[in-house]
Amino acid sequence: MAFKHVNKGVKRVDAYEKVTGKAKFGADLEFANMLQAKVLRTEYPHAKILNIDTSEAEKMPGVKGVFTARDIPNNLFGVIVQDQQVLAEEKVVLAGDGVAMVAAESEKEAAAAIEKIRVDYEELEGVFDPLDARQEGALKLHPEKDDNQVIHHPLRKGDVAQGFAEADLILEREYTTQFIEHSYLEPEAVVVVPNEENHLVSVYGSIQNPYATRNAVSSVLEVELAEVRVIQNHIGGSFGGKDEVVSAMAARAAVMALATGRPVKMVNSREESFTESYKRHPYHLKYKLGATKEGKLTAMEIEAVADSGGYACQTPFVTWRSVVQATGPYEVANVKTDTYGYYTNNPYTGAMRGYGSPQVIFAQESLMDELAEELEISPVELRKKNMYQQGSVTASGQKLDRHTVSLNEVMNKAMEAIDYKKKYEQYSKKQPGDKKRGIGLSISFRGCSLGAEAIDAAASVIQINKDGSVAVYSGLAENGQGLKTIFSQIAAEILGVPMNEVEFKELDTSFTPDSGSTVASRATLIGGNAVKDAAEKLKQRIIDFSADKYDLSAEELALKDGFLYDGQGNRLATFADLTGEMGNSGILMSAYGWYKSPPISWDEEKGCGNPYFTYVYGCQIAEVEVDTGTGELSVINMAAAHDVGRAINPENVKGQIYGGVMMGLGYGIMEELELKDGVIQGTNFHDYMIPTIKDMPDIKPVIVENPDPDGPFGAKSIGEPTLELGSAAIANAVAHASGKRIRSLPLNLERVLIGRALHKGGK
Amino acid sequence: MAFKHVNKGVKRVDAYEKVTGKAKFGADLEFANMLQAKVLRTEYPHAKILNIDTSEAEKMPGVKGVFTARDIPNNLFGVIVQDQQVLAEEKVVLAGDGVAMVAAESEKEAAAAIEKIRVDYEELEGVFDPLDARQEGALKLHPEKDDNQVIHHPLRKGDVAQGFAEADLILEREYTTQFIEHSYLEPEAVVVVPNEENHLVSVYGSIQNPYATRNAVSSVLEVELAEVRVIQNHIGGSFGGKDEVVSAMAARAAVMALATGRPVKMVNSREESFTESYKRHPYHLKYKLGATKEGKLTAMEIEAVADSGGYACQTPFVTWRSVVQATGPYEVANVKTDTYGYYTNNPYTGAMRGYGSPQVIFAQESLMDELAEELEISPVELRKKNMYQQGSVTASGQKLDRHTVSLNEVMNKAMEAIDYKKKYEQYSKKQPGDKKRGIGLSISFRGCSLGAEAIDAAASVIQINKDGSVAVYSGLAENGQGLKTIFSQIAAEILGVPMNEVEFKELDTSFTPDSGSTVASRATLIGGNAVKDAAEKLKQRIIDFSADKYDLSAEELALKDGFLYDGQGNRLATFADLTGEMGNSGILMSAYGWYKSPPISWDEEKGCGNPYFTYVYGCQIAEVEVDTGTGELSVINMAAAHDVGRAINPENVKGQIYGGVMMGLGYGIMEELELKDGVIQGTNFHDYMIPTIKDMPDIKPVIVENPDPDGPFGAKSIGEPTLELGSAAIANAVAHASGKRIRSLPLNLERVLIGRALHKGGK
Repeated sequence: MAFKHVNKGVKRVDAYEKVTGKAKFGADLEFANMLQAKVLRTEYPHAKILNIDTSEAEKMPGVKGVFTARDIPNNLFGVIVQDQQVLAEEKVVLAGDGVAMVAAESEKEAAAAIEKIRVDYEELEGVFDPLDARQEGALKLHPEKDDNQVIHHPLRKGDVAQGFAEADLILEREYTTQFIEHSYLEPEAVVVVPNEENHLVSVYGSIQNPYATRNAVSSVLEVELAEVRVIQNHIGGSFGGKDEVVSAMAARAAVMALATGRPVKMVNSREESFTESYKRHPYHLKYKLGATKEGKLTAMEIEAVADSGGYACQTPFVTWRSVVQATGPYEVANVKTDTYGYYTNNPYTGAMRGYGSPQVIFAQESLMDELAEELEISPVELRKKNMYQQGSVTASGQKLDRHTVSLNEVMNKAMEAIDYKKKYEQYSKKQPGDKKRGIGLSISFRGCSLGAEAIDAAASVIQINKDGSVAVYSGLAENGQGLKTIFSQIAAEILGVPMNEVEFKELDTSFTPDSGSTVASRATLIGGNAVKDAAEKLKQRIIDFSADKYDLSAEELALKDGFLYDGQGNRLATFADLTGEMGNSGILMSAYGWYKSPPISWDEEKGCGNPYFTYVYGCQIAEVEVDTGTGELSVINMAAAHDVGRAINPENVKGQIYGGVMMGLGYGIMEELELKDGVIQGTNFHDYMIPTIKDMPDIKPVIVENPDPDGPFGAKSIGEPTLELGSAAIANAVAHASGKRIRSLPLNLERVLIGRALHKGGK
Repeated sequence: MAFKHVNKGVKRVDAYEKVTGKAKFGADLEFANMLQAKVLRTEYPHAKILNIDTSEAEKMPGVKGVFTARDIPNNLFGVIVQDQQVLAEEKVVLAGDGVAMVAAESEKEAAAAIEKIRVDYEELEGVFDPLDARQEGALKLHPEKDDNQVIHHPLRKGDVAQGFAEADLILEREYTTQFIEHSYLEPEAVVVVPNEENHLVSVYGSIQNPYATRNAVSSVLEVELAEVRVIQNHIGGSFGGKDEVVSAMAARAAVMALATGRPVKMVNSREESFTESYKRHPYHLKYKLGATKEGKLTAMEIEAVADSGGYACQTPFVTWRSVVQATGPYEVANVKTDTYGYYTNNPYTGAMRGYGSPQVIFAQESLMDELAEELEISPVELRKKNMYQQGSVTASGQKLDRHTVSLNEVMNKAMEAIDYKKKYEQYSKKQPGDKKRGIGLSISFRGCSLGAEAIDAAASVIQINKDGSVAVYSGLAENGQGLKTIFSQIAAEILGVPMNEVEFKELDTSFTPDSGSTVASRATLIGGNAVKDAAEKLKQRIIDFSADKYDLSAEELALKDGFLYDGQGNRLATFADLTGEMGNSGILMSAYGWYKSPPISWDEEKGCGNPYFTYVYGCQIAEVEVDTGTGELSVINMAAAHDVGRAINPENVKGQIYGGVMMGLGYGIMEELELKDGVIQGTNFHDYMIPTIKDMPDIKPVIVENPDPDGPFGAKSIGEPTLELGSAAIANAVAHASGKRIRSLPLNLERVLIGRALHKGGK
């Protein structure tokens, strides 16, 4: 299949507006007569609110309103469990909970008034570790609930007792992962405009998931969805982070906009963003693994306990992804996995690039190297012995026969790219001096899109104007990942027009049907199919019209480069003339595109099913240098091979790989949100370290393409897979270099220096 | 058929926002960082521009830009002929042509700077009467054209020579009509915002025809349609008037918005609106009519000459409607009609409620009474002898067999409503004193919608949200006529939901496919069918899903009052739960609606065809009192019977009748734009008189319903038919009362006093 636009590294369609500064981000938005608002947040992780005195604040200059929970029509919201307070009413459950808010003529006046609000609290004891929170009799965060458990997902396959009985070796290990920050460049920002164009409220801003935000605002205001419009603007990164926190902001701003009758803007400072936003779930992971002495896995028993913080947020779904993927991409006949989420008085946790996979992959892929070491088999050999092949049955009982299972290919290609074999051999020898090198790998399978979490369907709209210009809309959002470009390529490919004839428009919930959230690396796969569907419908109309007009069969006709061609390659008409003629003939030149995923299933009680309709496979390999004298760790090279089905835009895929490897590196070696009894210590980047260019390894991206039967042009996912493998690969490389196995993230200076002594469960 | 929402006088869905002042009209719109702009207009009806000096204006405080034709990418636009200048470049062709414009921080500063622009003109001779403009050797307005003729439409049927030969009596008469103003409550206003949500420019304002304005702006800016977005706001009346004049404003504001990078607002004062806006076409009408002594028409020869003013604007279409309807609703075997439009240096003329029909109906229906008088037959009897019956063939050769031809019914019902027979008899007797009463009638047929003018299709969009709320969009615009209410009724009827579940949204050209213009009384007929189509598609999906879910046949299921019912009348589910479940099952709950008119035809050369797919019929009767001493004319009673096919909202139909009768009255008895060599004398309502409540007759609206096979629920048109009949009925009543035949509109004091003596062609 020869492509014209697809599978090409075309430049981003939003590049020009971004580099010229024309692109407006949330904080850039200005509306006439706009107020600015600020929120008073508590410093207590757990406290009763005795009294809120807003009287002084109300008298402050420029203040147009001071609001508390009593002003919120419906104060509880949440995508799965409605337990998150728009503003805390009776008590606060985490440091950072909003307590009151002020709308004023200027941000400065709003901030000054916030200072004048007096809140009397009665401090309560807190619980700050999910392992404590799960204890019987533990202090309950949400009194209306039976206990602190947010969720429990079981997975059951075979008989683990039997499996362990068959094992020659049983390993038991514990791993832990940390709180981390999304660290998007742009802190959260929203503006809510009241009574605009027949909507009660219009919400603008840096919103990752416009439909989720619309649901939240509609629910909080207790008005119909049709009355709330959410328009997504340019967004300075999200990585899963601009969902509930932005919905809460939007709901707050909406309440104030309706009360004042004026647009209300809320923009978080970096410190406010750190304080208020949700984080990646920290996990306690207990793995028990049985294997024969030849290295064949016989049983796995896994318990993963996630810290949900003060609210449920997306914990039920995050831990569900973990339960599906906890064994890694390995055939194990007997599996018992339980993942849990518990409330604590820590910051709440939610979606972050990778969702529930980075934690379990860190544990599982570290464990595989530990097993290899015990069995004195090479890490590669151990993996090849056990990993999924075409037709394998997963831990949840799903037979992998619908798509190409390419673990072997991605592993071989990654190894080749980084010269693994030679380096592994070389670094396995004794290295003189303090500085020692090592190389480590990790592999993964990852379910694409939402899976059995929720209905997986998305919409697009394509409108062809009478001048032949093509406007494309999607119900999924451009969050910086390149969706506008990818979708424009798909539309241009099908309709046979130049890329510059395609105008990709902003997401507006009042126009595009609810397409769910732009999460789970589903945009290209699900949304891309929806764009393809709309384009194909219109193409069909064009071809049918042309066949009639030129008295040719549809098969002879082709759309390419902005022209209609006949079978002999003669240009019959320009796309613009042809579609203009159709428009003027009374043919509807707009179409909805729609794509619903193939059937998937999950039995939550039995813990099995076909949770995703397709999977991607990846392998990352890290080459590191450890200064065993100082604990300094340098990641020198990283290879990242990912099967994406088909790269709609290879340059974009590479961009995802670079970015994902960087984020995986930060997660692996330095990022950690320091908490003291639930309170974040340091709410800016001078305290919270993220990788800089000096920390970056040389990255070797390897794109593997095995077109998926269900993907648009065969495309699958790339966003999250790139991030989930790095920490295990680095930990394995560090162990290879230094002999020290580190089972807690991040692998910072102290841990690399002291190594396994820091942790329980060392061998 | 028992209706729930349709055929009911439900209250307007936009009533609340309008009476509470929440509704924003063009001048209410405010955007952050917005500039205000003003235009310098020429006072010369015809002049060469020698020089424009903007240097002083540029130095004025607050000025951000002074612009002339040189700043306009493509200075010529026009819906049919591109001859209208955005700003005059080499010469002005009418008094009111824009010459330069200023964008400034405030309206006051913009106006002050306008005063400082110096333009040197060389005055040219002008031509101010189309009868002069058509003379050979007449001064040419547009030098690039062969002559001043804008258009000529012939209509030919039979052999008029033969027809006149068969006649016992031949009447030749001339009639004239005047320039009138649309007199909408709200003068024109637009705001153009640059670089908003991936559109180069967004145009907001009081825009009657958003797609036409988008075409104009896109063409003037030389950018693709996909880059221009037009959003219609509440509009304070339009009546055909807020089309080209608003497009020109929008194009001007767009040029300034792009140049300054800021939103630009332009709001006309009443004086500016009078000066700049287009008017209703004045006509010179020559009728020659042959009839047997029994009153059977044998031949008609008609020449109608319209004054197009400085630009072609919609003259080609306006005069086309005239050529189709010039004979009135009468069977005449031999017809020769020619309608013409000519350029003059008068204000330009365009669409106004009625289009090209009020002029010809005034002439034709006056002529019928003149003939009746000559033949000493009653006006009713003469009409009944000749008027269209079921199956009649029109002047253009169209057989009327697709719908009910109800002339007899509307005439009888109107006569009954006003007690015509008794009054006719009574006033036909000699009346003592100066004050004399008379009663006169007129009847019409009117082609619904665009006819063969242009492709006649329209779109709608309906979105059902997961909470069951229904959002409806139409590609046709609410111009005050009640479209939002009508279309909401249609959607609610089909979907079986309460009216308050339906949210009608503003027209946004970037959402709804191009549906043509909201003109020609086509909204209910064409747009209503499009809404019905979308609702029916969604209903089908709902019924199919329900049949499957409840294991019932689709025929048993019904949607009503927000519930799904089975055949026994049991409620199975709420609409909200059912559609929510469908949304969560991955079913697309949005649909495009589309309606394309049945085939129509027109042979422009032969002057025949089936120009409209259906027609409406009306009869208006005026009862007047004439003070023969002073010329004072009072219209005491008016009956207006109109066949609307089906009244979707009878209260709304009555509203149209009241308003249309009032406008017809103004046209008939007082409105006239006074011109002196092309220059308007008096540009506000202290000079230009429109009817007040004291001028209003007692109006008896009669709704006649003969459902049309092609109308939504049988509905056809009502907007324009209400306005076109009044002037002839009044003229006939005046003649009946005073014996004076007035052949020029309006029937003002002077004309009523002096009567036919004023005119040529008297009997």
